[in-house]
Amino acid sequence: MPTVLVIGIGAGDPEHLTLQAVRALERADVVFVVDKGLAADKGDEKDDLRALRAEILARHRPDAGYRLVVAPEVDRDRGPGVERDPAAYRDVVVDWQDRRAALYREMLTSELGDGQTGAFLVWGDPSLYDGTLRLLDRVLDGVPGAWSVESIPGISSVSALAAAHRLILNRVGRPVLITTGRRIAEGIPDDVDDVVVMLDGRTAFATLPAAQRAELHVYWGAYLGTPDELLVAGPLDEVADEIVAVRGAARERKGWIMDTYLLRRGAGER
Amino acid sequence: MPTVLVIGIGAGDPEHLTLQAVRALERADVVFVVDKGLAADKGDEKDDLRALRAEILARHRPDAGYRLVVAPEVDRDRGPGVERDPAAYRDVVVDWQDRRAALYREMLTSELGDGQTGAFLVWGDPSLYDGTLRLLDRVLDGVPGAWSVESIPGISSVSALAAAHRLILNRVGRPVLITTGRRIAEGIPDDVDDVVVMLDGRTAFATLPAAQRAELHVYWGAYLGTPDELLVAGPLDEVADEIVAVRGAARERKGWIMDTYLLRRGAGER
Repeated sequence: MPTVLVIGIGAGDPEHLTLQAVRALERADVVFVVDKGLAADKGDEKDDLRALRAEILARHRPDAGYRLVVAPEVDRDRGPGVERDPAAYRDVVVDWQDRRAALYREMLTSELGDGQTGAFLVWGDPSLYDGTLRLLDRVLDGVPGAWSVESIPGISSVSALAAAHRLILNRVGRPVLITTGRRIAEGIPDDVDDVVVMLDGRTAFATLPAAQRAELHVYWGAYLGTPDELLVAGPLDEVADEIVAVRGAARERKGWIMDTYLLRRGAGER
Repeated sequence: MPTVLVIGIGAGDPEHLTLQAVRALERADVVFVVDKGLAADKGDEKDDLRALRAEILARHRPDAGYRLVVAPEVDRDRGPGVERDPAAYRDVVVDWQDRRAALYREMLTSELGDGQTGAFLVWGDPSLYDGTLRLLDRVLDGVPGAWSVESIPGISSVSALAAAHRLILNRVGRPVLITTGRRIAEGIPDDVDDVVVMLDGRTAFATLPAAQRAELHVYWGAYLGTPDELLVAGPLDEVADEIVAVRGAARERKGWIMDTYLLRRGAGER
């Protein structure tokens, strides 16, 4: 039975790799790479991320005794109507995942021999806003028992953001919500005071209702763990414009951006 | 200026350690250990956890060129009245944190010389339900600029739980709530379908409203990443009793338990 490893390689710092992930890389006969970012929302992967992945492989597999299989990412319908209609957006995502599943099925079937081990390298943690495990579930649905799948946890951009700002995400005994820019467009929920936002292509923090903005602190980070890391923190009303400007300039300069932030109600208390 | 490192060492598997955490351990002149668990809710640390920490130190600091400073954990008022009154509970926690801050201040002041580096080893990720960074903030409030603090992210029990069950915590474009057993005692919020529960000493999943229980799947794990790892998953109504029994027996056998679980609305969809 072939084995498929889904390896979380951390948020951008090659030192985020766990010892478990290093061992997993060492086991791989085939390394699968789906290029151009794992989700369009995360921005297209550019040379930086490709270089980082190559660095990780070169460092932990100096033997180069594995086969590298690179497939281009499946395109997704990104029409403006789709982006504004949640139901249409969901349909598009589901269709896109179907076509991605077909790609994964093809890769696994044609590249992975009996008893071999394949590895998918995944940014952050495979358990948070990454679709690889879901795709493998679909692929495996068609052929039960054909492959064994293991998930290797990684440092998520949420953990990397918190570490960069030296934050504890929760306050004493209180919850933390991890959500998307799309979800907070109309405001953050009343019953949660700490909200981590991922996949926010349109700086939703800047257009929150004024009453909410006034009571929120923001802790923002981009390219976390890399030499290009950017951090801004402060009362949301005071630093929102700065984040929009810094973010826009960085995206322009590098051609892509990957950012995350915490919105915290109750400015004084950490 | 002395440096204080808060190092996330993962959820229980010594292989959860990141390369960054290994480097951080290598920098430490003094390793601080506050024994008996970082929070009473997590259960008392027993020999297993002490052995795991010793194993990590022996493996990554074979030189033993550091000073180990062990302090007993500060006791907390755990009267039954306190446990049932949220306001009293909060006061007790705040008072407890004050006394812990005094302990940390004393340790840092007396043990860490000029230019030295001290390290606190923290289970999981310093950013999630761990109080070390908060305590250091209080200590540093008294003496601004006296110490530099760095947070090293780690694999949280949330990530370890997801990996063990090969789960993605979020569904496509949807949020994840991380909360406590106490918070879900009256039910999980209506606007979230995926809820990770930590610090649940009283199996709150078993006493959720019947209407909620009927629509929930549970993915439970204890001693994650260790040889004693326990996993149970299934429709909540079908497996709740099993989890309560498995959990009780394990706690009895080992004298402590550390567990986490995901409650997922919508059984069929992963």
